[in-house]
Amino acid sequence: MVEQTARTKLNRLAERASYDEATIYKILDAMPMCHVAYQYDGKPAIVPTLQWREDNRVYWHGSTGANSNLHGPKHEVCMNVCIFDGLVLARSAFFHSANFRSVTIFGVPDPVSDHEEKEQKLKNFVESLYPGRWDKLRPVKAKEIRATSILSLEISEASAKARSGPPGDEEEDYGVEVWAGVLPIQQSIGAAIPDTRMIAGVEAPSYLNERTFD
Amino acid sequence: MVEQTARTKLNRLAERASYDEATIYKILDAMPMCHVAYQYDGKPAIVPTLQWREDNRVYWHGSTGANSNLHGPKHEVCMNVCIFDGLVLARSAFFHSANFRSVTIFGVPDPVSDHEEKEQKLKNFVESLYPGRWDKLRPVKAKEIRATSILSLEISEASAKARSGPPGDEEEDYGVEVWAGVLPIQQSIGAAIPDTRMIAGVEAPSYLNERTFD
Repeated sequence: MVEQTARTKLNRLAERASYDEATIYKILDAMPMCHVAYQYDGKPAIVPTLQWREDNRVYWHGSTGANSNLHGPKHEVCMNVCIFDGLVLARSAFFHSANFRSVTIFGVPDPVSDHEEKEQKLKNFVESLYPGRWDKLRPVKAKEIRATSILSLEISEASAKARSGPPGDEEEDYGVEVWAGVLPIQQSIGAAIPDTRMIAGVEAPSYLNERTFD
Repeated sequence: MVEQTARTKLNRLAERASYDEATIYKILDAMPMCHVAYQYDGKPAIVPTLQWREDNRVYWHGSTGANSNLHGPKHEVCMNVCIFDGLVLARSAFFHSANFRSVTIFGVPDPVSDHEEKEQKLKNFVESLYPGRWDKLRPVKAKEIRATSILSLEISEASAKARSGPPGDEEEDYGVEVWAGVLPIQQSIGAAIPDTRMIAGVEAPSYLNERTFD
């Protein structure tokens, strides 16, 4: 999204790719919403979905009824998680930019095939979003596990890219009389909306708290 | 992300794909942040970027220094714009879901090659985000236009998918004593952060207003 070739030194530094695990894990853990690209009929396709991380792997799930190019193994995919942090307004159109933190992972996904392991992974997914919820749910049925496919990618061919901070204008442009700065972007969870059919007296768990993805 | 195969009738209806222009345009116009998938070295790759729409086309830009598989014509790409509207908490793990509005567009992108047209498109992009800003900026330089590649896709092979509303549980699960409902998600622009080097007396334009992408 933000290329380095024609940018100032400031921007080049700010946008440098990173390959260290801590940086990559932090972004993945902050943002479950992701996009997975795969080949379908020889052409690229994208599906937005949710991911969760366990150690050095990311996982996502789908229906076994979905297209086999996505859900079968042996096919290269690419996952991206991008947190857009802001719009950067510079003094010239060219130096407008975006602040973001992005992780891209490449590889051939491994399916989780074992029934017990699938159930455990689904539990981990639910618990990653809603700690303590799994045991309160109607127990999962065997046919539901069978109908669910789970894929994972090792976080090996992966990189993080980020840009932060104010615009990096050309020195001679700082005198231009135009508003310059950053419009911060946040993605957040607001006040929980209870289902009208929820039975009376159910306590609101703490994972419903309003919060931001960051 | 949300498959239809094993869902209730309620969910199937809620998640039906749509192909009408008005629905597709509304989602594209609400959310500039997007992902483009392309083939790189025979494998799928994704780049998060910003898109803008003009009539029946979406546009995005990049650096001419970026990889040619993305920026050259004759290569299939796929663009997705997804607005995540909420996390849906059902009474069973299986019926957990997400509320979202998503547009996917497939095709071979057309480059904008003409110098004057490129400048016009860049102006349209800036004006789509910040009405009235272009004419206040330091004028764009010819070399900056040359360093920028602009691609567009006709909105022809495209679909919108959406899910909204409360969880759709199995009838016998509505008595389960667990919190159920929706955690609404919003992506929003907060209070503008002026650059510390901005010259004194510049008025804050109205496009800095706090707002949500919806």
